[in-house]
Amino acid sequence: MQFAGSHILSVDQFERADIERVFEVADRMEPYAQRRRITRVLEGAILGNMFFEPSTRTRVSFGCAFNLLGGEVRETTGIESSSLSKGESLYDTARVISGYSDIIAMRHPAAGSVAEFAAASRVPVVNGGDGPNEHPTQALLDLYTIRKEVEHSGRSIDGLRLAMIGDLRHGRTVHSLSKLLACFRNVSLTCISPGELRMPGAIVEFLRSAGHTVTETDNLEEAIGHVDIAYATRIQEERFSSPEEANRYRGRYRLNQAIYTRYCEPNTVIMHPLPRDSRAEANELDTDLNENPNLAIFRQTDNGVLVRMALFALVLDVAEQVADHETRVTWYTGKRFND
Amino acid sequence: MQFAGSHILSVDQFERADIERVFEVADRMEPYAQRRRITRVLEGAILGNMFFEPSTRTRVSFGCAFNLLGGEVRETTGIESSSLSKGESLYDTARVISGYSDIIAMRHPAAGSVAEFAAASRVPVVNGGDGPNEHPTQALLDLYTIRKEVEHSGRSIDGLRLAMIGDLRHGRTVHSLSKLLACFRNVSLTCISPGELRMPGAIVEFLRSAGHTVTETDNLEEAIGHVDIAYATRIQEERFSSPEEANRYRGRYRLNQAIYTRYCEPNTVIMHPLPRDSRAEANELDTDLNENPNLAIFRQTDNGVLVRMALFALVLDVAEQVADHETRVTWYTGKRFND
Amino acid sequence: MQFAGSHILSVDQFERADIERVFEVADRMEPYAQRRRITRVLEGAILGNMFFEPSTRTRVSFGCAFNLLGGEVRETTGIESSSLSKGESLYDTARVISGYSDIIAMRHPAAGSVAEFAAASRVPVVNGGDGPNEHPTQALLDLYTIRKEVEHSGRSIDGLRLAMIGDLRHGRTVHSLSKLLACFRNVSLTCISPGELRMPGAIVEFLRSAGHTVTETDNLEEAIGHVDIAYATRIQEERFSSPEEANRYRGRYRLNQAIYTRYCEPNTVIMHPLPRDSRAEANELDTDLNENPNLAIFRQTDNGVLVRMALFALVLDVAEQVADHETRVTWYTGKRFND
Repeated sequence: MQFAGSHILSVDQFERADIERVFEVADRMEPYAQRRRITRVLEGAILGNMFFEPSTRTRVSFGCAFNLLGGEVRETTGIESSSLSKGESLYDTARVISGYSDIIAMRHPAAGSVAEFAAASRVPVVNGGDGPNEHPTQALLDLYTIRKEVEHSGRSIDGLRLAMIGDLRHGRTVHSLSKLLACFRNVSLTCISPGELRMPGAIVEFLRSAGHTVTETDNLEEAIGHVDIAYATRIQEERFSSPEEANRYRGRYRLNQAIYTRYCEPNTVIMHPLPRDSRAEANELDTDLNENPNLAIFRQTDNGVLVRMALFALVLDVAEQVADHETRVTWYTGKRFND
Repeated sequence: MQFAGSHILSVDQFERADIERVFEVADRMEPYAQRRRITRVLEGAILGNMFFEPSTRTRVSFGCAFNLLGGEVRETTGIESSSLSKGESLYDTARVISGYSDIIAMRHPAAGSVAEFAAASRVPVVNGGDGPNEHPTQALLDLYTIRKEVEHSGRSIDGLRLAMIGDLRHGRTVHSLSKLLACFRNVSLTCISPGELRMPGAIVEFLRSAGHTVTETDNLEEAIGHVDIAYATRIQEERFSSPEEANRYRGRYRLNQAIYTRYCEPNTVIMHPLPRDSRAEANELDTDLNENPNLAIFRQTDNGVLVRMALFALVLDVAEQVADHETRVTWYTGKRFND
Repeated sequence: MQFAGSHILSVDQFERADIERVFEVADRMEPYAQRRRITRVLEGAILGNMFFEPSTRTRVSFGCAFNLLGGEVRETTGIESSSLSKGESLYDTARVISGYSDIIAMRHPAAGSVAEFAAASRVPVVNGGDGPNEHPTQALLDLYTIRKEVEHSGRSIDGLRLAMIGDLRHGRTVHSLSKLLACFRNVSLTCISPGELRMPGAIVEFLRSAGHTVTETDNLEEAIGHVDIAYATRIQEERFSSPEEANRYRGRYRLNQAIYTRYCEPNTVIMHPLPRDSRAEANELDTDLNENPNLAIFRQTDNGVLVRMALFALVLDVAEQVADHETRVTWYTGKRFND
């Protein structure tokens, strides 16, 4: 694809070469994100960070990524203005807001809203999540993390063995990640979920028809024994048709250190899209995994900054100029990224 | 007037020469707003963008204007802190906040609040709207747009033929614009509204006593035939004394392409202060005008950035230094302002 | 203490030498805060200004302090994201957010939350107030103000005569300030409060055992006659066990110009942590003191910027490099700090 000036709306836009281009630029962003180097390549540029639905984590990640390239950020943090609620169309909002900034990152609760906005925008738009529909930067940062985590052991996305765990029926994250994985070769995907929350058949078929292997099971322990990555997501009890059905699975998808030690291969990497519910009753990753060096969940969010920097750099066509606008790091940066 | 260090609180502050000074500086801001050039003249300066009432559009426009001059923006997006609601006076708020920034843009729901705040502020304050009272930057950007739109056809504000349409009784926008127009010569103003929502008599008299022509009518089609500008505003059904009265006018002030084609001169420019209600039942500009090249509503909001840049530059006394602090534009700017 | 890379969580961290170091750096920040000089020493650095509880004043003060050193600010202004409310732990939030910025300023309604967050953070954290617990930058700016105010008359914190007035039982501010004062020598503290709202015995004992003099009284007029500083705080009627008890004290702690003139020494400095309730029924500083040159309440908030700049400079270890990154001030700065 042609990145310069393009909207980033959906994982469907990306072919393998595009993904690899993003990852290659993201790799080059690491010294800047780690404050070993500083660049001002986007000095004078403005990001419109338009979050019409709150999301502190994603909003701050986009904003920091732009600041790290030297640009400024103007933002909104909810449907504060009543313009949209007063009947203003997305067309009008887009025409106005796109006159203020050089690029826009946008989150909105309605599926399709970001694409509708982008169609009227005069500047490139990056989708930061449009309700249940798409969140392409999350899928890219997930895949980028997978690539970095497994390359330590000489593996790559081609030939990857991946388990997805939890609510695979409703999870936007796992659907988008599956589509990106399909661009690669020979992936073995194990879908671990309660029967009611299985991966949609269309996605399973899509992967199989692209030459990948998909296995489906409701048994966590049996299935996580031979994977490179265990990607956990939340199971919400209210998703089930009845409390009895939910109770059948209660606690069976809570991955903890004991289960990890007993069933997983030694270097299996644990991922999660976050936020994770750390309350005792939650059906998620247990906090006793926090000291496990293979828990990659915070490396995922760190990688999110790299991937968003890469997308900004590619869409604004400065990927090759980043190093030409360096200044010195003057302040204490400690051991922040060494842990 | 003396701009350097002054508050910008009301259209009443401006004489013709002041308006022309703002417009002349706004013209020079265009290459920066269009990212053909970058200036850092306000590098190190801080705007306090204090929006005690939400307004995404106006808040982001002020913030971008300051960023485009190289300055930083700190802001608030509502009465989030309960300080004002806990009985803190505007005097105290102003004394505190004005110690943090170099200039303040402020919106507040109460009429007179911005002037009261400014009286206690130690830095210049620009009124971003104080409830039903004043919104001087909107009036200035409207008049600036008028000037730019008609000069294509060799016309100017002197001798302008303008129609204002809709709720002329309650519209802060049309009242302020009328006052600015009065500073010029020989304007023909046609006020098109339901009888219940006529322009206040005091404003009509003010314009006439300044030598302008004012015509009042409730018939849209007859009145828009010979104007340079058709400035539409919203009619809200709940403004009428009875539903019957409102029903008399239902749909009669909805300007659309068919009416435009049939009744307007070929180059009549269509304006609106935005936001516009794009729902089918709204009594506003129809979306079928969106492809009409004379629809100037998004050029209005673009011009808002220029006018706010000009006011910041004048009040902070850097209007003549902008070009001395240029840096290179390094990124993709595409065809953003060519449509 | 070692400032570089440290969290600033509590006044208990500070010994006298540390306090004096902060004040010495704060003094050097004044030309930058007054826009007589500009520094870009933190250009490229990002402050995460995480206000999980709204506080416009403190949030903007932290943000401006960072901007004045040349850095960028990303922020949140409430628990907008439901992540924390959805069961995300402070540990997870800290691990994620600390990957985005170089330093974090944080406010949160729960006592202890900022320390818990800091324990998981990969970058230094400055406590901007954790509920009823700690607000160390307020205590430091208060003591810094005291030092500056009394040095005009050749006095210093050693030997200071200070009255604290109001709700001394619940006031986080007066407790923290007392602890800092205890690091100095020979302070005479007069605690003026209703009997029900007396200073906690532990703090009184702490001060006495450190060699200071503490007097307790419920009579404002008698006690403010011989002090260098009168530090007022709010009395909230709802704090009393009964309306009758509250009524006994109604109006007796409202300091106004008449009481000041009659009872205080000529140069007694009046302080208050703000916000102050300026409504007529409030038991606070009267607005008729606003023209009194010894009313230092707005110098306090100005000093807050200096103290926060000093802490940022010390923790990020750039205190000695500030002057090496200067640029010119180009804009109108008027008489802003001359009043």
